[in-house]
Amino acid sequence: TVNGERLHATLLESYRLSLNDDDKQVRLWFIEETKRYGCKHIVDQMGNIFAIRPGRNNDIPPIGMGSHLDTQPAGGKYDGIVGVNSAIEVLKVLHENNITTYAPIAAINWTNEEGARFPPAMLSSGVWAGAFELGWAHERKDLNGVGLKEELQRIDFLGDAPCDYQKNPLSAHFEVHIEQGPILEQKDLSVGVVTGVQAINWYSIELRGREQHCGTTPMNSRADTLLCAAKMIVKVNEVAHTVPGALASVAVINSTPQAINTLAGRVQFNIDARAPSDERLAFLDEELERELRHVASQEGVKVEKWDKFWNSPRTVFDRTAVDAVRKSAKDSGFEYVEIQSGAGHDSVYTARRCPTAMIFIRCKGGISHNPAEYSTSEDIQAGAQTLLGAVLHYDQL
Amino acid sequence: TVNGERLHATLLESYRLSLNDDDKQVRLWFIEETKRYGCKHIVDQMGNIFAIRPGRNNDIPPIGMGSHLDTQPAGGKYDGIVGVNSAIEVLKVLHENNITTYAPIAAINWTNEEGARFPPAMLSSGVWAGAFELGWAHERKDLNGVGLKEELQRIDFLGDAPCDYQKNPLSAHFEVHIEQGPILEQKDLSVGVVTGVQAINWYSIELRGREQHCGTTPMNSRADTLLCAAKMIVKVNEVAHTVPGALASVAVINSTPQAINTLAGRVQFNIDARAPSDERLAFLDEELERELRHVASQEGVKVEKWDKFWNSPRTVFDRTAVDAVRKSAKDSGFEYVEIQSGAGHDSVYTARRCPTAMIFIRCKGGISHNPAEYSTSEDIQAGAQTLLGAVLHYDQL
Ligand SMILES: NC(=O)NCCC(=O)O
Ligand SMILES: NC(=O)NCCC(=O)O
Repeated sequence: TVNGERLHATLLESYRLSLNDDDKQVRLWFIEETKRYGCKHIVDQMGNIFAIRPGRNNDIPPIGMGSHLDTQPAGGKYDGIVGVNSAIEVLKVLHENNITTYAPIAAINWTNEEGARFPPAMLSSGVWAGAFELGWAHERKDLNGVGLKEELQRIDFLGDAPCDYQKNPLSAHFEVHIEQGPILEQKDLSVGVVTGVQAINWYSIELRGREQHCGTTPMNSRADTLLCAAKMIVKVNEVAHTVPGALASVAVINSTPQAINTLAGRVQFNIDARAPSDERLAFLDEELERELRHVASQEGVKVEKWDKFWNSPRTVFDRTAVDAVRKSAKDSGFEYVEIQSGAGHDSVYTARRCPTAMIFIRCKGGISHNPAEYSTSEDIQAGAQTLLGAVLHYDQL
Repeated sequence: TVNGERLHATLLESYRLSLNDDDKQVRLWFIEETKRYGCKHIVDQMGNIFAIRPGRNNDIPPIGMGSHLDTQPAGGKYDGIVGVNSAIEVLKVLHENNITTYAPIAAINWTNEEGARFPPAMLSSGVWAGAFELGWAHERKDLNGVGLKEELQRIDFLGDAPCDYQKNPLSAHFEVHIEQGPILEQKDLSVGVVTGVQAINWYSIELRGREQHCGTTPMNSRADTLLCAAKMIVKVNEVAHTVPGALASVAVINSTPQAINTLAGRVQFNIDARAPSDERLAFLDEELERELRHVASQEGVKVEKWDKFWNSPRTVFDRTAVDAVRKSAKDSGFEYVEIQSGAGHDSVYTARRCPTAMIFIRCKGGISHNPAEYSTSEDIQAGAQTLLGAVLHYDQL
């Protein structure tokens, strides 16, 4: 059985935007730590790290246990990290008990899952699964215009191994993650069995109005780009309320020229839109575009770019892999609920290429992407224990 | 008489945020150019440059002709520059015609009039007039946190002369400026006589909501700081429409943490509010604060800072100085209208300490703070000619 206290203690206090200096440090730590449990390492062209503990039959691909060590700009310290560190804990337990599995077992750190630094999210599991082109992913830029590939090189994590599910395959992928929602807390349960993930669209919108003097331009002869963007943000919120189960949010905005007395002439912002099904997301998509273009025309502002640059369709996880999780939870005596995830995860992309399932653990108040994010050692232990059981069950199969 | 063609040709194609490398170049040009017409130079502690052409009686303070060479981030090339270059043209005409005035005559370049880089606007004429403390002004920061004093030092324009109307006084201040509004174009006139300037408030507002996951946080349990700011921006616009003659605008916004999938937890924005009288501005001020605080409380977001960091009360120019302008326009055969300025000008602050008046010239479509800003050589010539006459009239007095 896993040890929740020692696992909880491995969580760091720091936050790491993908591929910054702190990310380099935690990657070196991940490699050192997994070496102790007999792992060999593969670093691929996206900096994904596969720490592989050999099994009895190393001709078959490893059973993966993956998540991510990158974080949002300001926390929390559980989102992603609990999954990777639970994988390490499983390796530790196998090692301490001298267990050799049939298949090799891999702990995986996927690069830039958050998409906070280099949008979109789940970028590197996406490249591995063939959802994104490697070259396109390498050219992703952060807010300061720094490119992903140059950052991989800078921190010495641009590997040689192909980032490709065919050339570096997995037999399965299991992921522990904090729920990031309120259901487990409401039901007073430690773990949830994740059956799939809702559909997601990310957009980048660029508006062009007119730079005008704030002190001399009559209120009724303006093409005020920031006012137009503000009305659109309010509208995004209104539209989301009209589609059952849908969410739509604007969190990033850039306005130029940023002078107090000159009306903005250009505004860029992003929309994050989600829905429980592809049909509802498609409806939300249509409503958003229609309503926002209407706002623009009313304000005399041009929509210069309407770029839906990321769509992640609804994901349904593999029956066999989910059953392994169910059986493991039951065997360990954990009551559970089945949950469709609101957040995206690397498992969304691995699910396209190998049997995949996820285990959620309870987190306080459903709070995530916030320094207040928190899970207890007991709940983390329950998650890692369920992971251990699921991997061993799957290994039997 | 002045030469409009050669004056128009002195306007540069470039734009200069205050105290950047291009501003240094244009300052050096200003000094070189005015040296040719017999000027001595004073550079004060705010980098204001006084190019003084001696008169017959140099015991009395110079008659100033001032405006600014800094610009908005993206134009235009007339706002401010037309005023300084008209002053140079006047010096040129005096020089070419071997005229020695009774009082010394000064062309003045005031630092950072736009306030686009270092808010507030008219900062250095404000220090000269005692409206702002020198130390406070030196500590003004741009968007990147760079301080005004260090930039003055960097470009070698931190002078020794006190920035002080008592220690470096003026007998009067005349300023030519583009109208930045539509009145002269509507009336088909080249010049306007400016009788005063409307009242202005600048605000900095800081909001604090909660960073939350965009994909998992239900729409009805959010404290979405950017949504709150958007509703406030819409409200600022609505409130402005309810106060006759008033303007209120939001052009600068900063939202953190700038991750597409994390709701903003902190937003800062500025309001530019103006009205034809102090009473109406006070009313607008009250309405804005009441309405915006109401929005915040509805959205569950905290107003962490409500900082009205600049108030420029309504200005009424000196009768004698304005009469000199009226007389000059009439003598030159220019029909004119009298206008209260919507924009602030260095003359607002000089007006507190010496007789001050302004001449507006027609600009195309009333467009300003925009690369499309434009005035004809004929109208510029009319402005400079009116300036020349006004200064000579005043010199007689
Ligand atoms: N788990 C998580 O927060 N992933 C980031 C991708 C998303 O925005 O859903
Ligand atoms: N003239 C001019 O644009 N001055 C800037 C100060 C203001 O915003 O009114």
